[in-house]
Amino acid sequence: MGDAVELFRPGEDVFYCGTFTRSGANADCHLVDERMVGKKPSSLSFAEAAALPLTSLTAWQLLFDRRGVRMGKPPGAGSLLIVGAAGGVGSILIQLARRLTGLTVVATASRPETQDWCRRMGAHHVIDHSRPMPPQIAALDIPPVSCIASLTQTAKHLAALVEIVKPHGKLGVIDDHDHFDAAPLKAKSVSLHWEMVFTRPLYQTADLIGQHHILTEISELVDAGILRTTMTRCLTPFSPDTLAEAHRIVESGGMIGKIVMSR
Amino acid sequence: MGDAVELFRPGEDVFYCGTFTRSGANADCHLVDERMVGKKPSSLSFAEAAALPLTSLTAWQLLFDRRGVRMGKPPGAGSLLIVGAAGGVGSILIQLARRLTGLTVVATASRPETQDWCRRMGAHHVIDHSRPMPPQIAALDIPPVSCIASLTQTAKHLAALVEIVKPHGKLGVIDDHDHFDAAPLKAKSVSLHWEMVFTRPLYQTADLIGQHHILTEISELVDAGILRTTMTRCLTPFSPDTLAEAHRIVESGGMIGKIVMSR
Repeated sequence: MGDAVELFRPGEDVFYCGTFTRSGANADCHLVDERMVGKKPSSLSFAEAAALPLTSLTAWQLLFDRRGVRMGKPPGAGSLLIVGAAGGVGSILIQLARRLTGLTVVATASRPETQDWCRRMGAHHVIDHSRPMPPQIAALDIPPVSCIASLTQTAKHLAALVEIVKPHGKLGVIDDHDHFDAAPLKAKSVSLHWEMVFTRPLYQTADLIGQHHILTEISELVDAGILRTTMTRCLTPFSPDTLAEAHRIVESGGMIGKIVMSR
Repeated sequence: MGDAVELFRPGEDVFYCGTFTRSGANADCHLVDERMVGKKPSSLSFAEAAALPLTSLTAWQLLFDRRGVRMGKPPGAGSLLIVGAAGGVGSILIQLARRLTGLTVVATASRPETQDWCRRMGAHHVIDHSRPMPPQIAALDIPPVSCIASLTQTAKHLAALVEIVKPHGKLGVIDDHDHFDAAPLKAKSVSLHWEMVFTRPLYQTADLIGQHHILTEISELVDAGILRTTMTRCLTPFSPDTLAEAHRIVESGGMIGKIVMSR
């Protein structure tokens, strides 16, 4: 532990997501800036805790920082549509939105097991993104869709999302695009919110310590029983073979929650 | 005046911007929904007042509603860069940001007369968008550029704007684009805010009356001497010839402020 560390004592258990500007993601040991580290939830195993930081930071920053959604349950909070909600980010975003905000949470998932998982995470409603979404939304008795979080295959769904979103609504996006044509958002004056979880470390922003604060809050919410881990599988031992197996599972596109590797 | 009108009495002087879903923009008489109408500033002539509604609504909604900038002068408010600031929207946006917020206002204009106009509207600094902008911004002793309002030729300036904007900053855009590639905004998690002033009437939103409230506030700020008209020319009489002349002037691309036609 470095001499200048102020937020932690030697021997404390921590969790964090790191940064792609430093090597070590698949290694036994990493070096990490303390401003990006939180106290590990004491109620979770190391593997269960390891499932959370990357996705929790992404979901938290997208929901509260990028879009400015307020915590609490104010009247007229509208609905949040989460596209591709059974994956890692969706699984924690459903929980955050359902437990900490007044938004009506509509998740999308295309298989019975992913739909069931989204309901268990806390979604008020689940629709199927492999079928036309606007009529499924119209059939629900919910407030207007003021926020959308599109977590995967945004380009494929964009026309439907523009149709669904309320005028002056907010579209949050986290997936990668060579090009992203935002012109169709103009008529409804819809805002586009990118969330790239590595923006703070990449640009060494003045508020880098914000990631410490978020992870600390996530940890407390887990220990209070308000949030749960999104780990659905744990592969052992920590070896090149299990690493390759983990990549095969993730790349299959059928992930539910988060897969973790452990010693 | 319709029987159901509640916000105005017969004979009251009003100003408004109308909607492109109703005919009449170049006619003597229009029909307009009262929820989009405000009381005319009593300190201005009809021509001076007519310069304001379309641009004031666009600038107000972009600044306060789309981006969530707060009124008042909080510390750490950052800087607002307004690209193409000498036109109609820029001329009122400079005033709103300078008088009602704590943002440091940097306007861009490429000619001595437009640069001088931006300073008279209230810009703290003026830079030249016909020369590379990042070094000009870097040479100013200002807070980070947290907000950009790009009012014209956004495609031409986009790479420079992405370089200038602070991580997690906000880019507001009002000009028309066949395609608008928003992918370059991802690395800094920059939000894109469209403002299309006709979104409320086009979609008959529940908050349509918001335009009445904004115009009423604009009117009061004008009469209090806080905002001034942006009219720079008034063409008379109201005829097909002067209408054609007005279009020629606007289409020349060299407009300062707003041109008005009057009887």
